[in-house]
Amino acid sequence: MSATEELHWNQDGLLPAIVQDISTQQVLMLGWMNAEALYLTMSSGYVTFWSRSRQELWRKGETSGNAMLTSAVFYDCDGDALLVQAAPSGPACHTGNVSCFYRELSFDDVLAADAARRVAGEPVFVWPAEAAEGADS
Amino acid sequence: MSATEELHWNQDGLLPAIVQDISTQQVLMLGWMNAEALYLTMSSGYVTFWSRSRQELWRKGETSGNAMLTSAVFYDCDGDALLVQAAPSGPACHTGNVSCFYRELSFDDVLAADAARRVAGEPVFVWPAEAAEGADS
Repeated sequence: MSATEELHWNQDGLLPAIVQDISTQQVLMLGWMNAEALYLTMSSGYVTFWSRSRQELWRKGETSGNAMLTSAVFYDCDGDALLVQAAPSGPACHTGNVSCFYRELSFDDVLAADAARRVAGEPVFVWPAEAAEGADS
Repeated sequence: MSATEELHWNQDGLLPAIVQDISTQQVLMLGWMNAEALYLTMSSGYVTFWSRSRQELWRKGETSGNAMLTSAVFYDCDGDALLVQAAPSGPACHTGNVSCFYRELSFDDVLAADAARRVAGEPVFVWPAEAAEGADS
């Protein structure tokens, strides 16, 4: 079986594609590829995505000039994600940051959001062991 | 605005979450998180996903023992992907490989799949410049 037959495209014919800088190992961005974008990424050497918002192929850097040259493409054990190692020619992010993942989530933020969910009456998960402890006390 | 309000969960209430080894920088896997999984990832310190196949929360390593301890969580510029830096206590992949991305896609595979798509009459993208060249020749 060819490797591409092991790829499980989602209902929109897409796979999430992580882009990692081949030199620094930094994770730069996550985009989405259809079969055509994957083919173009490997055949042209330019990392190419399917833009879900614009519904068109998007060669990274075609407007910004910050293209990414494909080094290697890996697929994961269950064939539903891609890892592209590439050499970027500039910042990955439209904000000018090297990586699109330039903001860290603080625990305070996540805790506050969780509290809001509890107040809103949304179901909140309790690990079975903790539920048992609660029943005991 | 709280950072969590900038997260754009998909129609199933999920975000793709890349896990990267905080020490080696290796990309280990891609999982999916809902708000609860994200909360648990940060509050328990154990990387936790939403299993789309089992439709339940899944603390990575709860059966294999190969848990991942959360170091930091980042979100991307458009708030639709997460990057989790973590310390794994064993292989990320159920196959025993350190990373789930242990297989490289060869250009031969992708080229063959593209040829099959052409034979099947599926639309094949041609870059506008190449189409213009084709028209000239």
